[in-house]
Amino acid sequence: MTARAASRGSLGSMRAIVKPSPGPGLEMDDVPIPTPGPSDVLIQVKATSICGTDMHIRDWDPWAQTHVRPPLIVGHELCGIVVERGSAVADGPEVGDLVSVESHVVCGRCRFCRTGKGHLCENTRILGVHRDGVYAEYVTVPAINAWVDPPDMPYSIASLQENFGNAVHTASVSNISGRKVLVTGCGPVGVMAIAAARGLGARAVFATDVSDYRLEMARTLGADQTWNPLKESVVERGLEATDGEGVDVLLEMSGAPSAIQEGFSLLKPGGEAALLGLSSGPIQFDLDDNIVFKGATVHGVIGRKMWDTWYEMRGLLRAGAVDLSPLVTHRFALDDFEKAFDLMASGECGKVVMFPNPDDADGPLS
Amino acid sequence: MTARAASRGSLGSMRAIVKPSPGPGLEMDDVPIPTPGPSDVLIQVKATSICGTDMHIRDWDPWAQTHVRPPLIVGHELCGIVVERGSAVADGPEVGDLVSVESHVVCGRCRFCRTGKGHLCENTRILGVHRDGVYAEYVTVPAINAWVDPPDMPYSIASLQENFGNAVHTASVSNISGRKVLVTGCGPVGVMAIAAARGLGARAVFATDVSDYRLEMARTLGADQTWNPLKESVVERGLEATDGEGVDVLLEMSGAPSAIQEGFSLLKPGGEAALLGLSSGPIQFDLDDNIVFKGATVHGVIGRKMWDTWYEMRGLLRAGAVDLSPLVTHRFALDDFEKAFDLMASGECGKVVMFPNPDDADGPLS
Amino acid sequence: MTARAASRGSLGSMRAIVKPSPGPGLEMDDVPIPTPGPSDVLIQVKATSICGTDMHIRDWDPWAQTHVRPPLIVGHELCGIVVERGSAVADGPEVGDLVSVESHVVCGRCRFCRTGKGHLCENTRILGVHRDGVYAEYVTVPAINAWVDPPDMPYSIASLQENFGNAVHTASVSNISGRKVLVTGCGPVGVMAIAAARGLGARAVFATDVSDYRLEMARTLGADQTWNPLKESVVERGLEATDGEGVDVLLEMSGAPSAIQEGFSLLKPGGEAALLGLSSGPIQFDLDDNIVFKGATVHGVIGRKMWDTWYEMRGLLRAGAVDLSPLVTHRFALDDFEKAFDLMASGECGKVVMFPNPDDADGPLS
Amino acid sequence: MTARAASRGSLGSMRAIVKPSPGPGLEMDDVPIPTPGPSDVLIQVKATSICGTDMHIRDWDPWAQTHVRPPLIVGHELCGIVVERGSAVADGPEVGDLVSVESHVVCGRCRFCRTGKGHLCENTRILGVHRDGVYAEYVTVPAINAWVDPPDMPYSIASLQENFGNAVHTASVSNISGRKVLVTGCGPVGVMAIAAARGLGARAVFATDVSDYRLEMARTLGADQTWNPLKESVVERGLEATDGEGVDVLLEMSGAPSAIQEGFSLLKPGGEAALLGLSSGPIQFDLDDNIVFKGATVHGVIGRKMWDTWYEMRGLLRAGAVDLSPLVTHRFALDDFEKAFDLMASGECGKVVMFPNPDDADGPLS
Repeated sequence: MTARAASRGSLGSMRAIVKPSPGPGLEMDDVPIPTPGPSDVLIQVKATSICGTDMHIRDWDPWAQTHVRPPLIVGHELCGIVVERGSAVADGPEVGDLVSVESHVVCGRCRFCRTGKGHLCENTRILGVHRDGVYAEYVTVPAINAWVDPPDMPYSIASLQENFGNAVHTASVSNISGRKVLVTGCGPVGVMAIAAARGLGARAVFATDVSDYRLEMARTLGADQTWNPLKESVVERGLEATDGEGVDVLLEMSGAPSAIQEGFSLLKPGGEAALLGLSSGPIQFDLDDNIVFKGATVHGVIGRKMWDTWYEMRGLLRAGAVDLSPLVTHRFALDDFEKAFDLMASGECGKVVMFPNPDDADGPLS
Repeated sequence: MTARAASRGSLGSMRAIVKPSPGPGLEMDDVPIPTPGPSDVLIQVKATSICGTDMHIRDWDPWAQTHVRPPLIVGHELCGIVVERGSAVADGPEVGDLVSVESHVVCGRCRFCRTGKGHLCENTRILGVHRDGVYAEYVTVPAINAWVDPPDMPYSIASLQENFGNAVHTASVSNISGRKVLVTGCGPVGVMAIAAARGLGARAVFATDVSDYRLEMARTLGADQTWNPLKESVVERGLEATDGEGVDVLLEMSGAPSAIQEGFSLLKPGGEAALLGLSSGPIQFDLDDNIVFKGATVHGVIGRKMWDTWYEMRGLLRAGAVDLSPLVTHRFALDDFEKAFDLMASGECGKVVMFPNPDDADGPLS
Repeated sequence: MTARAASRGSLGSMRAIVKPSPGPGLEMDDVPIPTPGPSDVLIQVKATSICGTDMHIRDWDPWAQTHVRPPLIVGHELCGIVVERGSAVADGPEVGDLVSVESHVVCGRCRFCRTGKGHLCENTRILGVHRDGVYAEYVTVPAINAWVDPPDMPYSIASLQENFGNAVHTASVSNISGRKVLVTGCGPVGVMAIAAARGLGARAVFATDVSDYRLEMARTLGADQTWNPLKESVVERGLEATDGEGVDVLLEMSGAPSAIQEGFSLLKPGGEAALLGLSSGPIQFDLDDNIVFKGATVHGVIGRKMWDTWYEMRGLLRAGAVDLSPLVTHRFALDDFEKAFDLMASGECGKVVMFPNPDDADGPLS
Repeated sequence: MTARAASRGSLGSMRAIVKPSPGPGLEMDDVPIPTPGPSDVLIQVKATSICGTDMHIRDWDPWAQTHVRPPLIVGHELCGIVVERGSAVADGPEVGDLVSVESHVVCGRCRFCRTGKGHLCENTRILGVHRDGVYAEYVTVPAINAWVDPPDMPYSIASLQENFGNAVHTASVSNISGRKVLVTGCGPVGVMAIAAARGLGARAVFATDVSDYRLEMARTLGADQTWNPLKESVVERGLEATDGEGVDVLLEMSGAPSAIQEGFSLLKPGGEAALLGLSSGPIQFDLDDNIVFKGATVHGVIGRKMWDTWYEMRGLLRAGAVDLSPLVTHRFALDDFEKAFDLMASGECGKVVMFPNPDDADGPLS
């Protein structure tokens, strides 16, 4: 009897949160436990965290309508224990390993994958978007997508590593060491970008958001100063804080046109901007003032570098240069996913983590 | 008697093209020959070429109204012979040297000047914009702005080097060697960017413009293929020419929103764009599709790197890797400046060069 | 019947050049045609070229004694036709494709492979060194190591691409565009580095070697000037050729202490050196003068970047920026390998290519 | 009466430590107070610190015999108050400003100075080596060499900034952010490199030296682990500390052949080394193993980048990311210079700072 047979019992089914058909909403269903292919591993999910993308899919917004083909199990941030390996998995994670998962399943053969740019793979399929996701008791992923964690890493931290990777990728696309940094947008990824920038040696980190709740989180995770554009002039505050010079590096995590503009206004001539936030369409943007006259360099950021970003995260976490635990503000049983999603929609939270088995929770459940 | 006294005669006045007061138009005036300060050189102008900026000043467009304070001698591209050196000029150009001139007079003391980023100097004063320019028989500039040319360099080439520098700066801000390059906008700077890209080892160079005259120039200066968006789909042509992959590098020289969009549409994921063209205000721009999802890197380009770009130009020209002579399509006596400007306005020309002394012309006058 | 069965006939054996046991020499043997594993392809060898490494193995020098475990089929440069694919090869080369082969078989799982640095893989196994090589009628390699060539690429060029990759990797590790380059050592890789530097936009290429035969080849492949240190002072010639400034980039392809010293003597302050040549042990080297006082940057180069270098090669060859055909000076039937190796030992040749089936030769046999 | 006349009195002479003639030793002399040229400032020296170079000059070793032409005032690290400005100094330091001094006086006109590489200026003249130095009551330097400090910066810290700049330049030549770093050699510059690496976001810093006194200082300034090669195997310790992987970055500050070898042995494949230490001549060095096979990148480091390094230092000190005060172990009156130099020769000290006026000392004198 394999570990898998032992752990999932004889029925061969599991609970999972699915988008059953086009339209708003999600539901909890009983579905078959998936069978790993020759190069896959089967993972028993220990924790799974909610990302903004999942909210779009729940709400069935235009992006979701274009990209998602129901029925589909949703979710892409997780950690879990490997319970079975495909026949062709010769090395990589062992049965029993705690793993986090890179949610981008890439082809490994295209010109991008072959040149260290897997995050640009033209055949990318994302868990919970293009193939079944991880809001479930089990999931199969290619063995190479399973990143082995230290066995004592808290499940909630292990789960949100995928999302932390977006932040680390953004923070490390410029040389941030010794630089003054502005982070626009303090949702969870923005806040993690603050922590990453701090851990990577930024000289000062400033942050903006329209939510005071989030600005409080930003300060907890390492921002030196935070500014709320609804209450004060971000540009004035920023110039004061930098002797009138502006910041060396902008990390744009919001996608909000006004925040983008404030960020570029504060960017020093010769500075660098990294853009992760999405605006969901064209905006009014002044290339002359924001980029050309400034001699600025702007980097688009997507996903995580495979696998440089994961090594970088491992280093930051191991060394204690980043502590993400204050960011995990709420824990739910997976069965209570509706409550978890409603909380996310309110914006009054950090990362929200769900546990298929409530006994696995690494903190009190909400 | 100094060389200067000898060359300008006893009257101490010279002809110059001036913007006498706010409003459209330019006029030829008699003005005093300027006196060089201790760190300056006095240059007898041999040739001076017309740039788009000069057209804006002549036409007194909104940009000119904001930046120019008449009365002012116009023009900033030139070559000439050093005829006098200020008392504190210990090295640098000698009397008798043929020099081209960097038109950005920078402070040498600000944080940008002190860190090899003089092109971003916050105290930049530009010849013919913020201080008297070069459409004249003589001009004084700081000795350090005078770049010594080989004595046998044709005057028209020596004059347009300043403008060529914009092109070389744009083409060299990314590693272009072995890359496929798209140049959007084939005015003189765009065409020189084609020549620079070719000389710097680009694998293939494609170019777009709405003018067939300019596309013809583009091919003459080294473009492999040219496309006119008024007549064909630039995106389709571009994908065909690159096996559907797009280009590695975009050099945006037009500032036209449609060209910018075509350029980014053809930019390969992970590619690099250098923006020199100005759009004169905000445009509709999709940061998501053009930069973020592509993982693209975008560089704003202003002026010339002081002095890396000048050394790079010298190398390209000396080695014969670039031949700019076909770009000089028309020569005029400075006295005929009205004709020269009208031709420029028609767009049916390459670089137009004017000669204060018609005997200095290095080709037949129009 | 598979293509493979058809092409190798019923006996299942093939001719191959083997090192049968420790000690000098090689011999032609009959050995079984190898069977591809699930992720492999079986290639019918069309052409195979000789590298210096193969000479070391034939001569059984100290390096070979340490690294090679006979019995072993020798050789690692080849091209051929895919005649069979393993069961797990889903994409990649098709049966009938002409392919060249990356000779470094890497693990794909170590920290280097996972971060775009496969050339540093700590589990690398090289064809003809650590596992059976390609001086044979057939060879199996992992499908991912087979690089599809245009079907009309001459076999000799397709075969030497692996070796050309060393040259391209070396030439592209610095930005060579518009730079003055010195290549020390004009064996085949050195000569190909000259061609690559030229194709990548170098401003000028100088080359040194002690063999006039090789210097002649260097000039044919694109060197502007060549110097023989046995006959003239390389440093004097180099300073003359560069206005006393030295070169921007050194490509050291010889490993000879005197050439290394000459190269660094000519390197400009702030310049870059790429080292591919091997000295086979410690040498007397002045780090102060050669690196520290110069503020130089030195890059060690090993193998080819997987797969950036292959894409770069494809671009150079397709665009006609590099023509390697003059480098192929001799062709032999594989059965005449003793003659081919003796010629290589004489040094009076460029690349020497052998053909298992003489009918495949793309030029007259020697 | 100018500030200068007021401060130096009517006699016009000052005390200074001079090398009077070729041969060992230094002596205190009365010499004329220097007169600033038009572009100079006159500085009243408040503190001056001892560098290894000064020891070489005192001892008149072969390097000193080659580079120094007595009679000469020695010393190049200092801070002081500007008491007079030359007639042509229009901006820059004001009379009364506390300044540190860049000891490399560069030409501002050569190809290096003109391209942001002033540290490689081919006409560099160093204070206390090629022109009169700073072990004196007053010194004149070009105004551009005087770096304005916050008025409340302790004199000893302000004085050693020049030397700290060597450390910061070395630590910042590679991207050190999030990396594991080994510093070989824990003299004052080495120890400051540890502090800089830490302040710039290094993940872990290891250090080696043969002196336990210095290793103690290394730990105080931020080293995680220190190893004494006289007592333990540096390579074994280093592999243990890095999971057998080695370090990402080597900062070589010793010039000692054994330390250089240990450092390269511990450098990870694909790693970067920055070399500041001088070996005083050729050493046995294995380019194959240390650089080529590793695919390593090696940077020679000289002086400070003008002026990037000074801005970087300012940032590190202002933000409190580096605290150099524990490094200042001894203070002396300038009159006691013999004692100060003897202490330096013993090696049982950090930075030793001397004060022309003992009342200026920012801590107890020895």
